[in-house]
Amino acid sequence: MKGRQSAAVHDVAAFSHAPIVTLTTDFGTADYFVAAMKGVILSRNPQAYITDISHEIPPQDIEAGAFILLTACSFFPPATIHVAVVDPGVGSLRKPILIMAGGQFFVGPDNGLFSYVCDRLTASRVFHLTNSKYFLEPVSHTFNGRDIFAPVAAALCSGVKPEELGSEITDYVRLKSLAPETPRNGEMKGRVIHIDRFGNCVTNITRDELSAEQIEAGATLRIKGKTIKSFRNYFAEKSSSRDKVFAVWGSAGFLEIAAANQSAAKLLKVHRGASVVASAA
Amino acid sequence: MKGRQSAAVHDVAAFSHAPIVTLTTDFGTADYFVAAMKGVILSRNPQAYITDISHEIPPQDIEAGAFILLTACSFFPPATIHVAVVDPGVGSLRKPILIMAGGQFFVGPDNGLFSYVCDRLTASRVFHLTNSKYFLEPVSHTFNGRDIFAPVAAALCSGVKPEELGSEITDYVRLKSLAPETPRNGEMKGRVIHIDRFGNCVTNITRDELSAEQIEAGATLRIKGKTIKSFRNYFAEKSSSRDKVFAVWGSAGFLEIAAANQSAAKLLKVHRGASVVASAA
Amino acid sequence: MKGRQSAAVHDVAAFSHAPIVTLTTDFGTADYFVAAMKGVILSRNPQAYITDISHEIPPQDIEAGAFILLTACSFFPPATIHVAVVDPGVGSLRKPILIMAGGQFFVGPDNGLFSYVCDRLTASRVFHLTNSKYFLEPVSHTFNGRDIFAPVAAALCSGVKPEELGSEITDYVRLKSLAPETPRNGEMKGRVIHIDRFGNCVTNITRDELSAEQIEAGATLRIKGKTIKSFRNYFAEKSSSRDKVFAVWGSAGFLEIAAANQSAAKLLKVHRGASVVASAA
Repeated sequence: MKGRQSAAVHDVAAFSHAPIVTLTTDFGTADYFVAAMKGVILSRNPQAYITDISHEIPPQDIEAGAFILLTACSFFPPATIHVAVVDPGVGSLRKPILIMAGGQFFVGPDNGLFSYVCDRLTASRVFHLTNSKYFLEPVSHTFNGRDIFAPVAAALCSGVKPEELGSEITDYVRLKSLAPETPRNGEMKGRVIHIDRFGNCVTNITRDELSAEQIEAGATLRIKGKTIKSFRNYFAEKSSSRDKVFAVWGSAGFLEIAAANQSAAKLLKVHRGASVVASAA
Repeated sequence: MKGRQSAAVHDVAAFSHAPIVTLTTDFGTADYFVAAMKGVILSRNPQAYITDISHEIPPQDIEAGAFILLTACSFFPPATIHVAVVDPGVGSLRKPILIMAGGQFFVGPDNGLFSYVCDRLTASRVFHLTNSKYFLEPVSHTFNGRDIFAPVAAALCSGVKPEELGSEITDYVRLKSLAPETPRNGEMKGRVIHIDRFGNCVTNITRDELSAEQIEAGATLRIKGKTIKSFRNYFAEKSSSRDKVFAVWGSAGFLEIAAANQSAAKLLKVHRGASVVASAA
Repeated sequence: MKGRQSAAVHDVAAFSHAPIVTLTTDFGTADYFVAAMKGVILSRNPQAYITDISHEIPPQDIEAGAFILLTACSFFPPATIHVAVVDPGVGSLRKPILIMAGGQFFVGPDNGLFSYVCDRLTASRVFHLTNSKYFLEPVSHTFNGRDIFAPVAAALCSGVKPEELGSEITDYVRLKSLAPETPRNGEMKGRVIHIDRFGNCVTNITRDELSAEQIEAGATLRIKGKTIKSFRNYFAEKSSSRDKVFAVWGSAGFLEIAAANQSAAKLLKVHRGASVVASAA
């Protein structure tokens, strides 16, 4: 099965349009780093269509990068090549890898950055990128994004097969699972996995873990000593309750804790990682 | 007339090049929102050429979004599709709309975001986007940018006619007009409509309201208790006056209040909306 | 020689792919400035492939822009057109110019912005952009990026020859050289030329000035009263020394002063321009 998918997604003829390369980094946009990666890709394959996912991953925050990749990647077409660089261990022995999952490619360091994607998408293969023929020479110890990941992405765009880029491996670094803990005594312990620009606190609770029936029956959330009883369908929904803070199903499929026209994170003084407990009525 | 323009700008053959889609949002670039929209557009039409206008509209600030759209859109080619999402009412009854104006398309929420564009550009038609066949299913209550506006833009790129996307309507939400108040007793009351990165205060006064002759004759501006008598042609102009603060015709066609090598907004403690009074000599 | 290179890089047929235009400005991304430039380029040449180097150059900081251009440009393909706008003198007599260097084009104000690029790359020709036929009319006094540099870039994309855009000149504004001062008494005085997002302090010292042998023999660096004796190959390298602050060869080819998992710039309170002295053992 895995073999078949690999063939399917990597048939060069499959690129009926320009191959798409996305970039996700913690480089910001004030330095030359992102531009250097784009230049390398375009120098090796001028047909590549490069698009940014985000360069504002907090410096060296692998979990934040893993979350953004997970939520963004599934909207891109099959065979999209996602290059991600949040890489505190650059230059050390951590492996450069290529992962095939969900019919797409993921290129970057083996430090857990693709862990959430692989939790959700099936049929993945993993390659240790060892064929320096496809690297920029000499490979620096400080910028593998430019010297390894960008040229490997360009090679994939040009139809180079994963097998030519390195050797298949069976394991890769995984972060702590995104899933909440198994419920006990009618309580399920989750956590805040992301805080967005608007201050909404994205939890790791999905509809699989908290059903419409449970909410209807009066389930509540507890965070930072505060109990949330109000569930809304959208941010601007008029509510009979006067609760400032409420829960809403966010666009990424996770339950979010929000506040009307203000930042729930600031109001509740919540940081990523904060515990969220869902209780049955 | 309107009908004819519509036909002209929406002839599929008119796309002699890749159809251009611009994005303007208050999403910032740290989250997955913008990338999800780009992914949806590229999944539905890999030929689309997507370019960003800005994602740094202050959160939920419709007026700021309307101003940026107004000043940027006219430089793009005919038939450009401008998608804009500053959408505090997402999920509520506010309509998703498509506006045709100035030979271009504008797709987003009906909350005034296209109001300044429509004030300036003639021959507009407005459609209520109701044909869910062109939406991403299921449409979330929290992210119409991804679920309605992005796929509708992709449909337009692919030659789907506005009439297929929904029903034509005759009204749409308008913000307070950009124009200054009618002059009285030799005074015209305007306001600051934007403060740019350099701290220049962009007013809503154009050359139509304050002529070169009036300036020559000694017109002055009053803002925050300060009277400005110095008008320059460009920022670095050597001036005989030693005034730190001066007025200059900005690149968007509006009179700006600037300060030499510093932020006029900070110096004068001006925020958007501040009153500016132009007086004849 | 110069003539031959010019011909080579400007043969229209050389564009076997979409001509690439990069943008480097101090405009930020919250305003309409960058979008207006992109719109102008696409209006004149819809085939142009536009990509951002950075719009986060600190306002009016020509040296910072010159550094980012230097470090980014060499990764782009031959004949790339780099448009750069950090332009405190816009509207004044400073010239709009086109520089050909290293097989690429550089378009912007003559204020030193291309100075570091020209220090490093040979065979340059310089043109004063005077042919207003290729400008956006009327040219504003405040936004040459949109009115001169963007349309000139589009003209280059379309195969217009540099000679048609203006008259060749032999001089251009140069910044203070990037090279460290000539060593004296076993000491070489350099300076910090950039501080990156991670707080690494990039010095102007290259391997040409400080050899592996000298480092091996025990060379040291002095900055802000602190002596640095630890040289590492990469940021995460395990070191026998417990020095928090160390030197490392950065990805742009310059020696950088870094700190383990924190900002060296903050730790040492270093700003750009700070003196760095390298001493032989």
